[in-house]
Amino acid sequence: MKFVLYSLVMVFSCLSALGQSTETARESQIDSLIALMTLEEKVAMCHAQSKFSSPGVPRLGIPEIWMSDGPHGVRAEINWDNWGYAGWTNDSITAFPALTALASTFNPELSAAYGVAVGEEARYRKKDILLGPGVNIYRTPLNGRNFEYMGEDPYLASQMVVPYIQGVQQNGVAACVKHYALNNQELWRGHINVHVSDRALHEIYLPAFKAAVVEGEAWSIMGAYNQFRGQHCCHNELLLNDILKTDWGFDGVVVTDWGGAHDTKQAAEYGLDIEMGTWTNGLTASKALAYDNYFLASPFLNQIKAGDLSEDLVDDKVRRILRLMYRTNMDATKPLGRVNNAEHHAVARQVGTEGIVLLKNEGDFFPIDPNQKLKIAVIGENATRQMTLGGGSSELKAQFEISPLQGLRERYREAEIVHSMGYASGAPAYGRALPSPYDADSLKAAALAVAKDADVVLFFGGLNKNHYQDCEGGDRLQYGLPFGQDELLHELAAVNANLGLVLISGNAVAMPWLPKVKGVMQGWYLGSMAGYALADVISGDVNPSGKMPFSIPKQLKDNAAHSFGEMSYPGDSIDQYYKEDILVGYRWHDTKKVTPQYAFGYGLSYTDFAVSAIKTDRTKYRLTDEITVSYAVTNTGKTTGAEVVQVYVGKPKSKVNRAKKELKGFDKITVEAGQSATGSLTIPVSDLAYYDEKSSDWKVESGSYVLYIGNASDQIQREIKVQIK
Amino acid sequence: MKFVLYSLVMVFSCLSALGQSTETARESQIDSLIALMTLEEKVAMCHAQSKFSSPGVPRLGIPEIWMSDGPHGVRAEINWDNWGYAGWTNDSITAFPALTALASTFNPELSAAYGVAVGEEARYRKKDILLGPGVNIYRTPLNGRNFEYMGEDPYLASQMVVPYIQGVQQNGVAACVKHYALNNQELWRGHINVHVSDRALHEIYLPAFKAAVVEGEAWSIMGAYNQFRGQHCCHNELLLNDILKTDWGFDGVVVTDWGGAHDTKQAAEYGLDIEMGTWTNGLTASKALAYDNYFLASPFLNQIKAGDLSEDLVDDKVRRILRLMYRTNMDATKPLGRVNNAEHHAVARQVGTEGIVLLKNEGDFFPIDPNQKLKIAVIGENATRQMTLGGGSSELKAQFEISPLQGLRERYREAEIVHSMGYASGAPAYGRALPSPYDADSLKAAALAVAKDADVVLFFGGLNKNHYQDCEGGDRLQYGLPFGQDELLHELAAVNANLGLVLISGNAVAMPWLPKVKGVMQGWYLGSMAGYALADVISGDVNPSGKMPFSIPKQLKDNAAHSFGEMSYPGDSIDQYYKEDILVGYRWHDTKKVTPQYAFGYGLSYTDFAVSAIKTDRTKYRLTDEITVSYAVTNTGKTTGAEVVQVYVGKPKSKVNRAKKELKGFDKITVEAGQSATGSLTIPVSDLAYYDEKSSDWKVESGSYVLYIGNASDQIQREIKVQIK
Repeated sequence: MKFVLYSLVMVFSCLSALGQSTETARESQIDSLIALMTLEEKVAMCHAQSKFSSPGVPRLGIPEIWMSDGPHGVRAEINWDNWGYAGWTNDSITAFPALTALASTFNPELSAAYGVAVGEEARYRKKDILLGPGVNIYRTPLNGRNFEYMGEDPYLASQMVVPYIQGVQQNGVAACVKHYALNNQELWRGHINVHVSDRALHEIYLPAFKAAVVEGEAWSIMGAYNQFRGQHCCHNELLLNDILKTDWGFDGVVVTDWGGAHDTKQAAEYGLDIEMGTWTNGLTASKALAYDNYFLASPFLNQIKAGDLSEDLVDDKVRRILRLMYRTNMDATKPLGRVNNAEHHAVARQVGTEGIVLLKNEGDFFPIDPNQKLKIAVIGENATRQMTLGGGSSELKAQFEISPLQGLRERYREAEIVHSMGYASGAPAYGRALPSPYDADSLKAAALAVAKDADVVLFFGGLNKNHYQDCEGGDRLQYGLPFGQDELLHELAAVNANLGLVLISGNAVAMPWLPKVKGVMQGWYLGSMAGYALADVISGDVNPSGKMPFSIPKQLKDNAAHSFGEMSYPGDSIDQYYKEDILVGYRWHDTKKVTPQYAFGYGLSYTDFAVSAIKTDRTKYRLTDEITVSYAVTNTGKTTGAEVVQVYVGKPKSKVNRAKKELKGFDKITVEAGQSATGSLTIPVSDLAYYDEKSSDWKVESGSYVLYIGNASDQIQREIKVQIK
Repeated sequence: MKFVLYSLVMVFSCLSALGQSTETARESQIDSLIALMTLEEKVAMCHAQSKFSSPGVPRLGIPEIWMSDGPHGVRAEINWDNWGYAGWTNDSITAFPALTALASTFNPELSAAYGVAVGEEARYRKKDILLGPGVNIYRTPLNGRNFEYMGEDPYLASQMVVPYIQGVQQNGVAACVKHYALNNQELWRGHINVHVSDRALHEIYLPAFKAAVVEGEAWSIMGAYNQFRGQHCCHNELLLNDILKTDWGFDGVVVTDWGGAHDTKQAAEYGLDIEMGTWTNGLTASKALAYDNYFLASPFLNQIKAGDLSEDLVDDKVRRILRLMYRTNMDATKPLGRVNNAEHHAVARQVGTEGIVLLKNEGDFFPIDPNQKLKIAVIGENATRQMTLGGGSSELKAQFEISPLQGLRERYREAEIVHSMGYASGAPAYGRALPSPYDADSLKAAALAVAKDADVVLFFGGLNKNHYQDCEGGDRLQYGLPFGQDELLHELAAVNANLGLVLISGNAVAMPWLPKVKGVMQGWYLGSMAGYALADVISGDVNPSGKMPFSIPKQLKDNAAHSFGEMSYPGDSIDQYYKEDILVGYRWHDTKKVTPQYAFGYGLSYTDFAVSAIKTDRTKYRLTDEITVSYAVTNTGKTTGAEVVQVYVGKPKSKVNRAKKELKGFDKITVEAGQSATGSLTIPVSDLAYYDEKSSDWKVESGSYVLYIGNASDQIQREIKVQIK
């Protein structure tokens, strides 16, 4: 006869939440936990149990991991094993501006605020991993997913991504930087095999990921769908094992993009840690079976048992997953988070107002005075379209979304605002484009009638979140505006010359109507506070200070990726060659002297600035030095505003191919009207290195470099030559 | 032009998890939080947002509350707004024995272990409130929900419920004691108006709730469906405001049973804090509206705004809810919990083995030697029926449930075990009884054929979790065994006299076949480990030590509630009068000299015990004294076992109506074969009080009392007279 000791069960469970432990203590606890786990339990942790969660070890109290799509807010709850929305009513959130808008602020502090806010929302929603931010480089304006990324420049993206990650993670929520790497188009994303030089890889496509990992200390990273040099990026020996985990010392978790795993042995050996989203049949009866068929599930287990794969492989993955847990769901010191609060709305609004880029402002078309009794014709579908819907995985269930029209109506109490749709696209749909049910001619005629009598015509057009527009899963089909907007704009200009427009998009578009419009504002996708942010800038309540995070070429073939035929973009569905190499974006325009419509770093203000007294602290530097550039910014106009001083560096004579210049520093300075402010920034000489393909390492050439200082990549006030020894 | 300060959003959210704060600090923080909240936000916290959650205040980071049915384990995930299971695959758990089995152990330490274990499972499953335990007094064997409660004696239930609550709550999970109060039958539970004397209320029906609140410090309590003196118990001025919150000082949260609220003004004023489960139309489009129509939603808000109800009312509710949060989801020191671990299985098994009650054992029918090559006929549907399914809200998705047959097969490796169903009930169904699709005659014939040739016939019958059996939402229709079991048992006995049976039920049943069977074991519903626990005891691996937590009357009319006609039970559908007053269970049998089949506190062992040297420390006591009773227990048999010494007290001469005796102390002592052990227990003289209806207070009469000491309510070894002054 036996009596089990009560005391056995009276002790606390072996896991109690751990807060302040040192890293050493944590690693030692992780080892102890792994020693308690069965092989089956360890393998289970390496793959999904549902659309957005992966299992813990229930008997040991090791929690599950819950993930949510980002990066612009926390996605609504999804069903356990199908893509339908769960229909909960507690999951509406703040929609923050798209990351292109954030990049346009050139304001890392604001990126930190964005990260804190979205991280708080994720934590309140009990998410352990937020699937974002995205830092794939803007290579072509046709990429359907550019709006989720931070533009074409690796330095800008690096500077902006680091504070975002730190902000998110201070909430005990892991950022998951994506999509690592080279997922620069949506067309054929699941299989296209990207070929790119080591130099372009390291100098253009990886720096933002490296900054995210090394400086931002991101706790997780998402593998890309595409292949690189013949291996899928979710299990890619070079990208994951060699570069990420070895060279960069990444100690976090590699998560697949959903369905991005394709092979058990590669997934086991080439750096993947958690497999998510692989197809299941979605039937209740065989659910467990389906997840158990994942590449990192039973097949992985069986290969370990058969001795074909080492158990060390799963131990390493589990160690990384547990480390992420100690940083997130097992961290007792994490805050509780919050959602839909005034501070988050303020962040969303400020990112919006600082991100809006004023591209053209003939005759001071903007700001439009809210105190005058104007008749304002607001034309265009995007004046009222909900842009938090559609777009793919970044779709949000916003608690509210202020449309541009609503924002204007609330701000322009004195004005008579008349709205006419002008054109219509179609229903938002993921994976397909639905035709518009409206009669285009009638819409146009109505808009022209409204515009004709107005004092001001303000057109809200651009793209939207439909398939083939700014939307995951497909690329744009054309560089020009869709839905007949070009023609409509020409006709609007013909009936009323006092015409300006706001482009709602995450991508560059062709601007054949540019000479006929007085004002152009790049309005992005601004989320919950979109209408307020736009009204802030349109009214002059906020002086625009955004700068383009990518170039807007005059025509598609002026873009580097499109200058080398279809094997450069989009490839032949199997392979693709990045033939422009390192000359992406403004690097191409500058070096090849292809004038863009609007250049990287460009953006107007309602005031005027003069950047002067530009100098470096010395003229000669050694490899370990930092170059300090100082300057004064004078606001010569009548309105307080902010200017972004940009420092580019080039090396005219080099033994390797070089872009004319590359961004190496920027500084956003607010100056009151009539005032001056001084500033300075430093550039480590090591940042001038190129990636040497022979030694597979970074190398700084000695010799003469030129610093280009200005307020846009094509508006350089001063060039300073320095020597590096 | 304005620039929002970044620093505004860089601060942590106002709420960070609070662990070690003092009570004063907590109350002060609660006040500060309430001051930040809008009236709408406060009202929102007082009602459900889904089937099992209530909202927090997202903008302030105040979390939601998630609840789960108990009390025997954590229920599977339910859909957001309908009763369907959500189909998740991460929600299978350990099913613990039903609370009747726990009560039968007479072992408070085991109750603590049970509470810790189920609390750990709730915490792992991210539940903040576990809806249990239930301590409604077993008044009639027809009550469909008795299996979820702790028997007929207020002292036993009090002793067992306190450690359960403390165990659950040490996991940062609130226990929710239910169903407060007088929900002693399922028939007409939604509206039956119970009339009971103050004495019976305070002496019989409330003590376990009081102990749960005052000693157990339960953080929440669930109102009952029924009415008491014309008010529904979920908003009952006397029960909630006067007794619970004022007299007992309850500072926690009153939650409705699901759908138990019926009136806004009463809910607001008469003590309800959170309204759950009120009917909604379940349609996605109008979900928010539906929950917003709850009695404590918009109608509450509107009455406050109109000045018809004081805002203090909602402030008090919110203060209680926040207090519960500081103890649960906002307590950073809470553990992570765990599920399906070996320790929990061990607790479930031990509660099972200690709870099984050996009722009859003629010729040492039990234990059945597992080392002999016996042919054992296992007859009866309950040998294989999954009892974690059905029963209503306590239904569980057990990771596994070992059936009695499986338990025996694993233990009896030498035996030939043949199973025959014998009878069939029907599919488990909530709210209706489905007929069996089997031919009863064929089943019986097959069973008799199997039984005839066997060395031993072991019958597993009783009730099950179908509607009209042991199941929420309805009462039993008969006292006798259903599905033709009585007849089957008579016929089995006729073909093989070596017949014993195990009753799987949570209620007493008529036993017309008793003289014809050699052994009877009360096997309860034992959850995941049922088959192992039963095999432990049947085989003699564990010596039974369970004692009946309720009386088993010979016939239904011998039960007190059934001795006064239909207005006593079940009432006339509108009103019901507890005419037996304080004489519930053994109090009735003892006082009225109605001999039960098996008495409260009764249970056999495989060994024999003699209780001797019984004495009190003195013979005269004052009101503030404690009576110490000491005794020796000698194991006179050949097997180690445990005996429960029970001390009852009576007052033969009293100015009020008294039961002959009432349980006032018990002590479970394990003694090895041939050994003796001494023990003692103390009874505060204040525990001898009766509830004086005139002064509405407890009063201890002076004079002569008799202590009855024995090992069952009908097996008293010694009577000791003491004087109280």
